[in-house]
Amino acid sequence: MKTLAIDQLLRTTARHPEVISFAGGLPASHTFPKSGLAQAATAAILEMQEALRYDWPEGRRSLREQIAERLRTRGVDVEGDEVIVTNGAQDGLGLVFDLLKPSVVQVDAETYPGALDLFRRHRCSTTTANAALRYTMPALQNPIGHTATPAERAQLLQSSLIIEDDAYAELLFDSAAPRPLLADARQRVFHLGTFSKIVSPGLRVGWLVPPRRWLSAARELKSSRDLQASGLCQALVEQLLSSPHFDARLESLRTHYRQRAEQLLAQLPMLRNVHFAMPQGGFSVWVETECYGIDETLLRHGLSRGVAFDPGCLFRASPRADQVLAFRLSFSSVPEDRMAAGLERLATTLEDFAPRRRHSAA
Amino acid sequence: MKTLAIDQLLRTTARHPEVISFAGGLPASHTFPKSGLAQAATAAILEMQEALRYDWPEGRRSLREQIAERLRTRGVDVEGDEVIVTNGAQDGLGLVFDLLKPSVVQVDAETYPGALDLFRRHRCSTTTANAALRYTMPALQNPIGHTATPAERAQLLQSSLIIEDDAYAELLFDSAAPRPLLADARQRVFHLGTFSKIVSPGLRVGWLVPPRRWLSAARELKSSRDLQASGLCQALVEQLLSSPHFDARLESLRTHYRQRAEQLLAQLPMLRNVHFAMPQGGFSVWVETECYGIDETLLRHGLSRGVAFDPGCLFRASPRADQVLAFRLSFSSVPEDRMAAGLERLATTLEDFAPRRRHSAA
Repeated sequence: MKTLAIDQLLRTTARHPEVISFAGGLPASHTFPKSGLAQAATAAILEMQEALRYDWPEGRRSLREQIAERLRTRGVDVEGDEVIVTNGAQDGLGLVFDLLKPSVVQVDAETYPGALDLFRRHRCSTTTANAALRYTMPALQNPIGHTATPAERAQLLQSSLIIEDDAYAELLFDSAAPRPLLADARQRVFHLGTFSKIVSPGLRVGWLVPPRRWLSAARELKSSRDLQASGLCQALVEQLLSSPHFDARLESLRTHYRQRAEQLLAQLPMLRNVHFAMPQGGFSVWVETECYGIDETLLRHGLSRGVAFDPGCLFRASPRADQVLAFRLSFSSVPEDRMAAGLERLATTLEDFAPRRRHSAA
Repeated sequence: MKTLAIDQLLRTTARHPEVISFAGGLPASHTFPKSGLAQAATAAILEMQEALRYDWPEGRRSLREQIAERLRTRGVDVEGDEVIVTNGAQDGLGLVFDLLKPSVVQVDAETYPGALDLFRRHRCSTTTANAALRYTMPALQNPIGHTATPAERAQLLQSSLIIEDDAYAELLFDSAAPRPLLADARQRVFHLGTFSKIVSPGLRVGWLVPPRRWLSAARELKSSRDLQASGLCQALVEQLLSSPHFDARLESLRTHYRQRAEQLLAQLPMLRNVHFAMPQGGFSVWVETECYGIDETLLRHGLSRGVAFDPGCLFRASPRADQVLAFRLSFSSVPEDRMAAGLERLATTLEDFAPRRRHSAA
């Protein structure tokens, strides 16, 4: 796979201090609620006995109730005992695939690379045509940054079985988390969520709400996979969620990332002959060039000039020669004062690369 | 499966305060290094940036080096970058099965229930006859509490591929962790370990050392499964391991559990017509009765008298009618002052049950 070579490139180069990295789609470290987490950790370790013990595979009862309560405010009919705590959304996606063992899944033309990786490992093919199982991120599509319109939402609900990846739902710039598909198709939606984007990814705490007929099997499968998610990390999230300031903090995260997005978008015209739109939330903007060529080559060019980004092929289930070169730029964790310099390097990269590669538009 | 009914029985009843539970094989909560963990958590959250971020799928470099160093002292040729940090040993076992996709695995007649559960879910059959893939716990066999003799060890090394589950290796009563099979067959052994027994299971930190030719595939698979183990929990374990008191603490754990084992063994003759041996380490003793019958019935009898234990069928890959009823009694977490009362309840249970069930010996 090309992605492996690219993964290696990004691994070996992107954390060099001289490289300005728009890669990764990572939450900004300075937003982590460190003092709250430190207090919560002390309380969990010293006072919450079951945080350090073996616990039930489905997770801490009170955390599951909190997750359900947050989903209920978004219109979902769900109780805490219908929630399974996972090691982030990726683990939840793996649980769904271990349960369903699907042979084909419908995806968007561009989608989350971790999902594509998991689909490949499960020898599940992907298609953009209609299929019985649909993987989708309606609240905020990664990498496009788009929220499903009512018409698109209705279309999504046509699928027989839906995996709803809600990873960025709490990070829409201008609204609270929207009504999930789960609210309208409780028995056909596997709903995945995570605290990685809004608390910290290093905790590895997310959740799965499966259709009720799959609940018992999912719980047993979680036990068989790794017994349970970290009880300590669950206890940390539980305490943060019970803080009266949690939602105000979310609001300030939304404002923060919107401002970062606006900063990047204001400077993006520095790149010539590219197309992009302001994302509706999240960490990144999707940029399409007018060039054709090899993603790995473009990335190598960029890295040689000291700029990293996520090349488009990472997000494409079936990279094709007739797709323009594209890339995802994350504004979430690149230092504000290095953004312009990074874009300059990227502009030079594209200028060098493009003339040799650009084809006439169809 | 019978095990599901039994799991439900133990779940709903065994944590009632009036029940004296020898079930579960859990580390004693009072042994958790709480103050060390609380200090480590504060340091990790406030000072170790990458503990809260996304990290590499294989885990923290320094923790992996510490794990390798501990294995090197046991005779293994291994470097830190050959270690993959997992969510406990169960996750490591799942990784191995996702890699190998075996159709049959050789096991002991009685073995770890979590492994049997995982084998069933992977539709992998089990056999006690020779097979190309062997699952084994040579350092301390769960549930028997036996350490492989040199002859048994040589026999184990005959297998083409070996999964060495080293979960209890640090908890032998009278010796440090023994030389693992990995030391003698580096390219044929998938070595699994965990900090669940010696630090805390709620952290979910363990490791996998695969044969070198499987390392890259295992690392990619870990990423696809759940991106990584909790960075925060890894940072906690890393700090505990770097304490100069860590090995002294292990020594005191060994002494503690040996004393608890001796207490239980001294009182076990209270049960009539049973057979058992002093375990060589770990948390439990395996007890065989002279009765035949249904494990679930025996457990129900016990629970109705206020005593819980792990029935033998949980540990048996292929429960057969000609196997005597057996059970595992854990001494690790039953309160010392309730041990005698628990055994009295168990004795009554067996007395009531046995006469109706006992068959003449062959």
